[in-house]
Amino acid sequence: MQTLQVDLGERSYPIEIGEHLLDHADVISARIRGRQVAIVTNETVAPLYLDQLTRSLSAFLVTPIILPDGEAHKSWQTLQLIFDGLLGARLDRGATIIALGGGVIGDMAGYAAASYQRGVDFIQVPTTLLSQVDSSVGGKTGINHPLGKNMIGAFYQPRAVIIDTTTLGTLPARELSAGLAEVIKYGLICDAPFLGWLEAHIESLRALEPKALSEAIYRSCAAKARVVGADERESGVRATLNLGHTFGHAIETHQGYGAWLHGEAVSAGTVMALEMSRQLGWIETAERDRAIRLLVRAGLPVVPPQDMAASDFLQHMAVDKKVLDGKLRLVLLKKLGEAVVTGDFPREALEDTLRVDYGALTQHLGA
Amino acid sequence: MQTLQVDLGERSYPIEIGEHLLDHADVISARIRGRQVAIVTNETVAPLYLDQLTRSLSAFLVTPIILPDGEAHKSWQTLQLIFDGLLGARLDRGATIIALGGGVIGDMAGYAAASYQRGVDFIQVPTTLLSQVDSSVGGKTGINHPLGKNMIGAFYQPRAVIIDTTTLGTLPARELSAGLAEVIKYGLICDAPFLGWLEAHIESLRALEPKALSEAIYRSCAAKARVVGADERESGVRATLNLGHTFGHAIETHQGYGAWLHGEAVSAGTVMALEMSRQLGWIETAERDRAIRLLVRAGLPVVPPQDMAASDFLQHMAVDKKVLDGKLRLVLLKKLGEAVVTGDFPREALEDTLRVDYGALTQHLGA
Repeated sequence: MQTLQVDLGERSYPIEIGEHLLDHADVISARIRGRQVAIVTNETVAPLYLDQLTRSLSAFLVTPIILPDGEAHKSWQTLQLIFDGLLGARLDRGATIIALGGGVIGDMAGYAAASYQRGVDFIQVPTTLLSQVDSSVGGKTGINHPLGKNMIGAFYQPRAVIIDTTTLGTLPARELSAGLAEVIKYGLICDAPFLGWLEAHIESLRALEPKALSEAIYRSCAAKARVVGADERESGVRATLNLGHTFGHAIETHQGYGAWLHGEAVSAGTVMALEMSRQLGWIETAERDRAIRLLVRAGLPVVPPQDMAASDFLQHMAVDKKVLDGKLRLVLLKKLGEAVVTGDFPREALEDTLRVDYGALTQHLGA
Repeated sequence: MQTLQVDLGERSYPIEIGEHLLDHADVISARIRGRQVAIVTNETVAPLYLDQLTRSLSAFLVTPIILPDGEAHKSWQTLQLIFDGLLGARLDRGATIIALGGGVIGDMAGYAAASYQRGVDFIQVPTTLLSQVDSSVGGKTGINHPLGKNMIGAFYQPRAVIIDTTTLGTLPARELSAGLAEVIKYGLICDAPFLGWLEAHIESLRALEPKALSEAIYRSCAAKARVVGADERESGVRATLNLGHTFGHAIETHQGYGAWLHGEAVSAGTVMALEMSRQLGWIETAERDRAIRLLVRAGLPVVPPQDMAASDFLQHMAVDKKVLDGKLRLVLLKKLGEAVVTGDFPREALEDTLRVDYGALTQHLGA
């Protein structure tokens, strides 16, 4: 087991990474202060891991809350099911909520924990690669609104993140690839050597080789912990974690939540951010193509939906959280391994980026 | 204008108290950082004060959001109307939400501000006595759930509280009395001299004499600011502010939200807390009766609903937020002017308290 620390003063917490951690009663129990525990999970994950986790928590009063699966359910209607479960079981302010599942479960259970009785303890047990390397770390929680993704939520830090890499054994290959989009992101925004490591190990990762997985998760979480520790509430550098996300959110919103996986939309969005960085003269064509090639090898889409016009992107991007007083800011690359957040670009550069034929652009890169 | 400071480190903020502050553009504008403002108010308050406030904010882009009035609407459904309004107007992370109205508006707008894009600026402009002396100060925000009051919410501090005492001129007498229940509470829990002052000025307050109102609001807010400054997240002394509230919440829940005003339920609940403190031998019968007499003179009910049995109270009190790991804690009085939060009482004392005939007990006190 490896342990990382997210350094946020009195809100600091550990990330534990290892195999078979769901069976380690003491690893999880050590982070629970009261006797009441609610496990929030979904219909897909519950049959796989709920019994196992419940057995490890036999010393506690456990209430399971099982939600429908999917981004389409990341809504206030589903959030109500959590509150109904917590209040139905009369959980009090000393209770702990455990999120067992992917990013949607973590985001919703975290927001429920932030809001229930104005805040109860919260532990993340992410079971997808995407949530293990990204959404479970850093305290962003929330739900979607019909007019925008993640528009309602809270910054709320967990007491611990417990990553059992064994759970990736049951993850569909498509979702593993989606998680790799965020792993590759860390290389692109702040860790160029990691990019080289990924190029050497991408097949091992897709084959679920435990040592490679553990290393990739550790380096990703370490990068995220560094960035979050420097900027918890995203007033600056933290926004670089959203490379590809502004374009990606527009894709997810336009296609309807759940049609594209989040990581898939981020991958296509990252290609757009790479292309725009190239147009601005910040990265070379060869660098853009090197990054695209890695995304393709990870099994990810690199072309936005055919039916999305530039105007569709602009409309959805106007309500993005990175808009401040009407000005759109984007995460772009100064070079591979160094991202910036900037609103300082000509409007035409954005419009040109949105009008590129990405099918043609990526054709010779294996896409 | 008088100014008080709520001392919470980087979350500190001022409370401004005075006449005609809604017309003082600079008092409010000084607290707004961006250009976008949403005013959240309700159908009752909007015709009275929305135009006036909007005129004072002519330098900003103002989006009004007008909700239905009443505690019955302090729900997820109504909260969604706020999010719909904010997103419909494309308000960004630099926006400021102003709550213009009573406690329900302040609690909902505050929770919306805490949650919208994971937190935007928030200003309280309370227009009822209850919200001016209690709910607008201290950062408690939230909504009700069918299974319990204020069960979902956040601790979220405003950037300022602006109290225009002139707005009390349009407040129904019954609501003014309800606010006085919380004013009297401050005397009972931490300011015995204030209790004497209130006995001398209760008629002036009910007649809306400006100097008396201003003094009562100032002393109430000062008491609340002291307590909140010492214990922002209610891990200790802050819970004393809930004198009468555990019994009162049971009354509100049992009667259906809105049938009794919050302050009315608190008044009857305070009588029960007084009686229980007397049974425990902490205060004298004469002290209990002195406090009840003041509540009666303030125009408040001092007898719980006739149809509420002891079992009804116990059922509703079991989900109260002051329950920790199954143990019910109550705010009781060690003496007039000194409250404690304790779970250390014989179960029979509580049951005896719930079985008292309060009609008979208060009959000779003017009730």
